[in-house]
Amino acid sequence: MFGAARAELDLTTTRAEPQPADLADVRTANLAVVLRHLRAHGPSSRAAIAAATGLTKATVSSLAGDLIGFRLLRETGLSGNRIGRPGTALALDGSAYASIGVQVSSGQLTALAMDYSGERLLLWHRAGAAPSLAADLVALAQRAVSRVRQQGRQVIGLTLAAPSSLTDLPGLRDVSHEELRSLVARSLRQKGLVVTIANQAALAAVAEHRRAGVDLAYVSGAAGLEAGLIVDGRPLRGGRLGRFTLGPAGSPTLADQAGIESLVRRALPDFDPAALADLGPAVEEVAVRARAGDAVTLAALQHTGHYLGQGLALLAELVDPALLVLGDHYATLAEWLIPHLRVRAVSPSALGPHAAALGGAVSHLDQVDTGRVPQPAE
Amino acid sequence: MFGAARAELDLTTTRAEPQPADLADVRTANLAVVLRHLRAHGPSSRAAIAAATGLTKATVSSLAGDLIGFRLLRETGLSGNRIGRPGTALALDGSAYASIGVQVSSGQLTALAMDYSGERLLLWHRAGAAPSLAADLVALAQRAVSRVRQQGRQVIGLTLAAPSSLTDLPGLRDVSHEELRSLVARSLRQKGLVVTIANQAALAAVAEHRRAGVDLAYVSGAAGLEAGLIVDGRPLRGGRLGRFTLGPAGSPTLADQAGIESLVRRALPDFDPAALADLGPAVEEVAVRARAGDAVTLAALQHTGHYLGQGLALLAELVDPALLVLGDHYATLAEWLIPHLRVRAVSPSALGPHAAALGGAVSHLDQVDTGRVPQPAE
Repeated sequence: MFGAARAELDLTTTRAEPQPADLADVRTANLAVVLRHLRAHGPSSRAAIAAATGLTKATVSSLAGDLIGFRLLRETGLSGNRIGRPGTALALDGSAYASIGVQVSSGQLTALAMDYSGERLLLWHRAGAAPSLAADLVALAQRAVSRVRQQGRQVIGLTLAAPSSLTDLPGLRDVSHEELRSLVARSLRQKGLVVTIANQAALAAVAEHRRAGVDLAYVSGAAGLEAGLIVDGRPLRGGRLGRFTLGPAGSPTLADQAGIESLVRRALPDFDPAALADLGPAVEEVAVRARAGDAVTLAALQHTGHYLGQGLALLAELVDPALLVLGDHYATLAEWLIPHLRVRAVSPSALGPHAAALGGAVSHLDQVDTGRVPQPAE
Repeated sequence: MFGAARAELDLTTTRAEPQPADLADVRTANLAVVLRHLRAHGPSSRAAIAAATGLTKATVSSLAGDLIGFRLLRETGLSGNRIGRPGTALALDGSAYASIGVQVSSGQLTALAMDYSGERLLLWHRAGAAPSLAADLVALAQRAVSRVRQQGRQVIGLTLAAPSSLTDLPGLRDVSHEELRSLVARSLRQKGLVVTIANQAALAAVAEHRRAGVDLAYVSGAAGLEAGLIVDGRPLRGGRLGRFTLGPAGSPTLADQAGIESLVRRALPDFDPAALADLGPAVEEVAVRARAGDAVTLAALQHTGHYLGQGLALLAELVDPALLVLGDHYATLAEWLIPHLRVRAVSPSALGPHAAALGGAVSHLDQVDTGRVPQPAE
């Protein structure tokens, strides 16, 4: 079902199967060691990097020279490090490369661009109008790429963050993930710009993992009830946790019991179902009524929390994450859901509703951190 | 819950986080390349290995020299390879090293030893008597190690394959996984012999993966309803899929609906529940009655298949395995379960009820295949 997208997502992982190792692989791994050291510890002298990583000073100097040439590092003023005599420090240089995540969800398109230093360059929201959603998506991607280029960055990747199934997205009902990816890729001709598509919950999990640094499961209510999983630091496929059912044929699914749409219908019985195309305002209204102590709303949240906890317990049992993250709409309602979950180590996402767009952008930048330096645009 | 066991199981995986690469790492990776080539292709000349792996002939010769020194390779007669002039072929040498898996389940202990060439050295079953199960386990492990040593092999590892929870094992009710591992380890003092404990379904999945070579999910009915998962070639924690429930508090779990014990109770209403300590004979009786067309038995199998399919569908959605494997008791009953599963790519395990013991043994041998050569015993 999500095969093409998975192949793309695998770009963010390394293969476990050993390949013939040669000196180029050693250099790639060592470039990654230097980049990750600087990301974790901030500007450092060559001597400090050598002391912390076990590489020789000569190797660090050679690697640094290459990385400065790739415009991934720059020299700053005097180093504050205590190791060795005061000297020039190296810092990550975010000025050359950027990547973009575009989140496709019911009712809204979101584009987020980030440069290699972690600076957010743009965050745009567009209403996703049903008949022209594909065209709107292409236009948004093109405008985002242009804007980032105007800011002097080479765009090395763009990821579409999409639900497992596009069938609930008006205007994309008959389009496959690969067709959507290829539509956007064809509209953005630039050598060295990689266009991928992946599950939105899996990408949100990537963004959370970059922040939290531990294995985690992320649940999203933005498209049914989807889960993204990070195991041993790497994204698994994730997918529609909400499809799970346990009962005779035709029994309610987990999404029927714990999905955001079903929550809104239970919590706001007077709400116009036509307004559910964009869940954001409805979820805000649920929060307002819960805060006011509305009994119907609180009962609906208890119901959702009970069943969501059953789904989270299963993820905890199967993949043993250090952290269970309530994403997007679930994060908005976390204070009323968490008391009913009965699972440990749950916390609401602090990344907001565009976590998947962020994950889409950082998954390309993470590639650079593995030592695979960008290809020149020309 | 299964934290210690998981840490042990992680011995079989490689870390995704890049470490400073040095020439020792390159050599380890290249040793692995040579060993895996020979495991996949059989005896080959140095020239053929070089041609297939991209390593230089000089490098292959040097690696082969080391591996012959470690007694992991031997030279055979003339090579049948077409590449280069006829010469001496290299073959995996299984004569030096072996490892052991000991499967701990309700009613039975199983020990299986295998040498590095893949030859099975022993397969022993012992009835697991309740009051002395821990002592019986230690005695079985000691006898297996002695026997393998008498056969001239150095034992490099022993893995205990246990259920996620030991509470259902009479005689081990108050013992933790780490306590059990340490009990056995203390009784087997030998330098270079690593004793680990891991989930039995996860280990069965390792054994299946060695055979099938693709990502898979394995379901076991030997202890509740457990799942083992292989993703990107590496074992995940796995665990008690059967604990999953979807409904008001107190609703039946997936194990209540699709576990082997509940199947036996439904299929054989006249069966003495006291006889369920060892499920094997009861499962055989279910198969006999199903073959005879007994309506009660067939209805029970349909019920089990329906719910087991719901569990398998969830695994397929979350981790996207290429293969869903019905293990142990489910394999015995596969012909009556599969028609009711409604999932694709299911097949019964061909490894029989001791797949977890096999997985325990091969997980140590797989370590050698990653280039980490055994430590000498003295």
